[in-house]
Amino acid sequence: MISDLAPFFSPQGVAIIGASQDPQKLSHGILKNMTLFGYTGGIYPVNPKADQILGLPAYPDIATVPDPLDLAVVVLPASMTPSVLRACGERGIKAVIIISGGFKEVGGKGIELEEECRQIAKSYQMRLIGPNCVGTMDLSTGLNTTFIEGIPAKGAIGFVSQSGAVCGGVVDLIADKGIGFSHFASLGNELDVTETDMIAFFGDHPQVRVIAAYVEAIEDGERFMRVVSQVSKQKPVVLLKAGRTDAGAKAVSSHTGSMAGAYTAYRAAFKQSGVIEVEDIVSLFDVAWSLSCQPLPRGNRVAIFTNAGGPAALASDSLAANGFTLATIPPQKQAQLAEKLNPSAQVANPVDMLGGAEAHEFDHCFQVLLDEPGVDVFLPMLVPQSLVDPADIARSIVRNARLTEKTVLACMVGEQSLGEARAVLHTNGVPMSVYPDVPGKVLGAMQSYREWLSQSDSPPMAFSDIDRPAATERLAHAQQLTLGESETRPLMADYGLNLVSGGFATDADQAVEIAAEVGYPVVLKIVSPDILHKSDLGGIALNLATETELRSAVQTMRSRITTAMPKAAITGFLVQKMAPEGLEIIVGMQRDPAFGPLMMFGLGGVYVELFKDVGFGVAPMTRSQAQAMIAATKAGQLLAGFRGGPSYDVDAVIDAIGRLSQLALDHPTIAEAEINPLLVLPKGEGALVLDARMILSEK
Amino acid sequence: MISDLAPFFSPQGVAIIGASQDPQKLSHGILKNMTLFGYTGGIYPVNPKADQILGLPAYPDIATVPDPLDLAVVVLPASMTPSVLRACGERGIKAVIIISGGFKEVGGKGIELEEECRQIAKSYQMRLIGPNCVGTMDLSTGLNTTFIEGIPAKGAIGFVSQSGAVCGGVVDLIADKGIGFSHFASLGNELDVTETDMIAFFGDHPQVRVIAAYVEAIEDGERFMRVVSQVSKQKPVVLLKAGRTDAGAKAVSSHTGSMAGAYTAYRAAFKQSGVIEVEDIVSLFDVAWSLSCQPLPRGNRVAIFTNAGGPAALASDSLAANGFTLATIPPQKQAQLAEKLNPSAQVANPVDMLGGAEAHEFDHCFQVLLDEPGVDVFLPMLVPQSLVDPADIARSIVRNARLTEKTVLACMVGEQSLGEARAVLHTNGVPMSVYPDVPGKVLGAMQSYREWLSQSDSPPMAFSDIDRPAATERLAHAQQLTLGESETRPLMADYGLNLVSGGFATDADQAVEIAAEVGYPVVLKIVSPDILHKSDLGGIALNLATETELRSAVQTMRSRITTAMPKAAITGFLVQKMAPEGLEIIVGMQRDPAFGPLMMFGLGGVYVELFKDVGFGVAPMTRSQAQAMIAATKAGQLLAGFRGGPSYDVDAVIDAIGRLSQLALDHPTIAEAEINPLLVLPKGEGALVLDARMILSEK
Repeated sequence: MISDLAPFFSPQGVAIIGASQDPQKLSHGILKNMTLFGYTGGIYPVNPKADQILGLPAYPDIATVPDPLDLAVVVLPASMTPSVLRACGERGIKAVIIISGGFKEVGGKGIELEEECRQIAKSYQMRLIGPNCVGTMDLSTGLNTTFIEGIPAKGAIGFVSQSGAVCGGVVDLIADKGIGFSHFASLGNELDVTETDMIAFFGDHPQVRVIAAYVEAIEDGERFMRVVSQVSKQKPVVLLKAGRTDAGAKAVSSHTGSMAGAYTAYRAAFKQSGVIEVEDIVSLFDVAWSLSCQPLPRGNRVAIFTNAGGPAALASDSLAANGFTLATIPPQKQAQLAEKLNPSAQVANPVDMLGGAEAHEFDHCFQVLLDEPGVDVFLPMLVPQSLVDPADIARSIVRNARLTEKTVLACMVGEQSLGEARAVLHTNGVPMSVYPDVPGKVLGAMQSYREWLSQSDSPPMAFSDIDRPAATERLAHAQQLTLGESETRPLMADYGLNLVSGGFATDADQAVEIAAEVGYPVVLKIVSPDILHKSDLGGIALNLATETELRSAVQTMRSRITTAMPKAAITGFLVQKMAPEGLEIIVGMQRDPAFGPLMMFGLGGVYVELFKDVGFGVAPMTRSQAQAMIAATKAGQLLAGFRGGPSYDVDAVIDAIGRLSQLALDHPTIAEAEINPLLVLPKGEGALVLDARMILSEK
Repeated sequence: MISDLAPFFSPQGVAIIGASQDPQKLSHGILKNMTLFGYTGGIYPVNPKADQILGLPAYPDIATVPDPLDLAVVVLPASMTPSVLRACGERGIKAVIIISGGFKEVGGKGIELEEECRQIAKSYQMRLIGPNCVGTMDLSTGLNTTFIEGIPAKGAIGFVSQSGAVCGGVVDLIADKGIGFSHFASLGNELDVTETDMIAFFGDHPQVRVIAAYVEAIEDGERFMRVVSQVSKQKPVVLLKAGRTDAGAKAVSSHTGSMAGAYTAYRAAFKQSGVIEVEDIVSLFDVAWSLSCQPLPRGNRVAIFTNAGGPAALASDSLAANGFTLATIPPQKQAQLAEKLNPSAQVANPVDMLGGAEAHEFDHCFQVLLDEPGVDVFLPMLVPQSLVDPADIARSIVRNARLTEKTVLACMVGEQSLGEARAVLHTNGVPMSVYPDVPGKVLGAMQSYREWLSQSDSPPMAFSDIDRPAATERLAHAQQLTLGESETRPLMADYGLNLVSGGFATDADQAVEIAAEVGYPVVLKIVSPDILHKSDLGGIALNLATETELRSAVQTMRSRITTAMPKAAITGFLVQKMAPEGLEIIVGMQRDPAFGPLMMFGLGGVYVELFKDVGFGVAPMTRSQAQAMIAATKAGQLLAGFRGGPSYDVDAVIDAIGRLSQLALDHPTIAEAEINPLLVLPKGEGALVLDARMILSEK
């Protein structure tokens, strides 16, 4: 199937509606760019006041433009856009880029105009990019619907951006660096075509080897995860998210009118979908470029050859910080290295060939180590020296990179003397960084992608021993939006979560009855719609060993609560078996507007707040995703048995996460849920819900 | 006093010993560089085989070079260096730079040659830079003793580097960026002149406003801290340390022969001395450059004016991550902003003037907000647009920056179209970054320096109620290198640390006697030179309430230990009063070879290992330094009363850190010490040493 996004990049004819004769206008710049980079289809300026522009005949309206025509670029004031859009629809055009701003991002009337455009596009089954964007580039067809000056080199990175300025800035930054792109797409307000659509398109496109994305907000998070999880299995998706902090999110929302939402959910969603998230623009392209021209590292052992020790030390720090190590070079290989290097050279890794090292010395290092099984990655480094031509070294690196399937990254510390060296390396698919800390970061990102790829492709957790209708019924009859322990217990039971045994009592006699049934010692807890944090008010009594103690506790608790909160309605008491020894953890859920149920796991008690030791994941999850979410926390280390401590039933925790996920997925009315604590028993003995609460959404 | 390092930068005459006629030799490059940058003193090539080089008369030896002559640069094989050095001494030269390698860094004979040079320098009272370095530059005098191609712009950053390659790489990186330097100094093996000497020299030099340093290893850490703490009060010291990880430290040590030592100690020392530590080369110069031309931020509220929302969102994220916030622009100022901006502009912060924003719009933003008291920092941002000249925007920024004493940093996202804009900004003292995440990082570094400067300048903690001679005596008579609780108790008492009351008993009767004295309940602990981890072997019994329980515990413990470790010598038992409720923490000391006693503070129990929640500081410390070390940890938050929990006696912890520091400072034989746990009681009630151990160094 040919995607309906194809005409945005390889149309047979393009109309620029609103193309101006005035070189000071952006629309003129777009027309000019259309003519500059080898695009061979028809280029049709539409402007009723002009005969021709830039030597191209101009047309009074879209209806008069000749066939074939399958893309229109609209550069007119917002208010004129709907009627032009309608004309495009009539003309049978299925792909339109609206460059102009003045829509949703300015609020008020702009929102209405954008809505009107949406309706028109829908009625004519047109795909729209924009409004408020800078358009698209295809480095293969030469199509360039942007007004950006210059284009990047041709290559295999498909770049999609929710910010036009980031597109422009990136081109300005990298145009002379030889970093190769296949496509550029600026999506603006995403009236129709979204980041997810574009990632799916790039995912299917044979010319795209790596997808790079700049994202501010994702509206349909569930679809994003579904699509990107599939795409990531074929090619890496490297992504930079703006609005990670509250201040950044506010900045995003003020300029796009979109809510950036909670970064925690984004982060969890990215991780589960195989997205390689980076933290800044420079890393976005360092990582995408390396992925697009080098194989993934097959392991984490790096050999550095360098003409300078200091930068190699900085590189080593960065490698270590990103999970890579310096490969151990066997003694006989060290001896071989020494044969043709400076007698003072250092032949252990990093191999320091000393300042004057020339191309044949780099060649020698490669030759000795290319087949060394203990080396997974080569990192040749150079600090320019007046007597050595960096381009010669670059040629040596390229020559040797061709002889191996191992990852080769180059680092040359400098700028002014490295133009030719960079060109040699980048034209031949060896990424070059100028800062020694970059290769470590790049390798770390490559490795995390490799790990994601190696995960088994199992289905999400699903449970059949649940009673969904019963839970639906209970939730439909909930008396209030905040559910305490006594209301959540039956819901938990419906979904097969193990509860500590016990029951609800309205008075001391009933409490004693329940205690006799479950056996002493017991715990007594207040039940009141007005009290959510029981322990703060003395609403929990532990370890009651006899009937006398239990009766006395009922009396004390009732009078204490009545004194502290005279208006609190006391519904009754929960009487539960005193739990055995175990580790108390929290399993929670908060529904994210974009991604759905965001599951949370962390250590119980004061430590969850003190150490913020919490893992997140988006439901539904596979068992291994839940396991990874647990293992990423310190609480997970405790569960696994820390330093000879007891090991607990991690499988029961995974199970609890899965069941609470399913409860949340099945019942969208549940806005928040928290099992706190879940008492995790020793390995093989399960886990018990000791307390839980939920918040329902307004109906 | 004129420093004896002055001749390395502003000599009256320079001899290049070993200057070659061959343009392919580094020594020729040095001579050429000496002639290229306006140095007005005498330049004397010394080469017995040449008449003249580069048009300068050559001299057969140093003795024949005319006066005035106060610097010699030696570029000869290592083996010839000692005799030449002696000739320099005879000639009365007091400053020599040895460029050549082949000394300590190659081991063996090289170490001997370096030692010989040290003796010669000492006997003639010469100062030496190098060997194995690239020399010095002074951008004011035009002196350039390096063979690096190109020089940086003239400015106020004094740069000292332990790696010559880093010097060369940096020049290549920044030569065309307009970042201004006053001095460059590559120190190589630091036979004589060290990083600390150079920082002290730059500290006194009126042309240096900021000191930048690349450091691999510091030999005399105590002197470094003393000197740099003083210099930092006058001007900022920005530092990049290589060898922060084990791999990096190994790389450093393999290429310099120096041990990098424990990064933990470096980090604590840097923090206490006011050093602004950065993590990569690019930050070293971003931060140094901003500090050299802009005032420190007076507060943390930033106003962003931008022509592009996306980069502003990325900048906002970075600001937030570094402790800065977006300033709140009052409604009347927002209205004023709106008057002259694009009607669709966003006038809340970030102020988004939209794509076409021109210089007068930047002017307008500045004019409205220059005097706004709620703004501390201005961050104008630009993404290049084809219709606006970035240099015009740069001129607007420069104009307005001159009108304010607030910090102004510019960010222009691009490269190829920004050459002139950068030149305008950098020539006029406004630092420009190309990546939106940089200003946040730079401001964070500036702010941390400002906070260090604002610390009260109090003396280190000192205690008079200690009995140093008693401790000296005890340590002199220690029977073994590992001291357990019973041996450390009296030492702790000598230094005024509060011990839980109790005493040493050899049998049950004595134990009962002590218990009667301190009062029940008591704790019983085994004392054995063979057992350091008592609890693992059942060597601790808690909460013994009666004489019967105590006698039974003595018996059980003795038989249990005898069974588990038949060869363990049981010296006896400690009987201590059962401690009250409190928070258990650890205070430790590990002696660092470079910096001396490194103090450690952290949470007790399993959590210190699980969460690695530990603070470090170098003794001696002021009270506020100890307080900061505590406050930086989660344990510190618990001590202070976390979320309504009890608050503990933090002063007693500071006191314990101070007393253990003094014990360590007074007795260098103590290699390690650990109070574990220190039981911290509620506020005002002090802290009790419950257990402690020490390791002494081999004598």
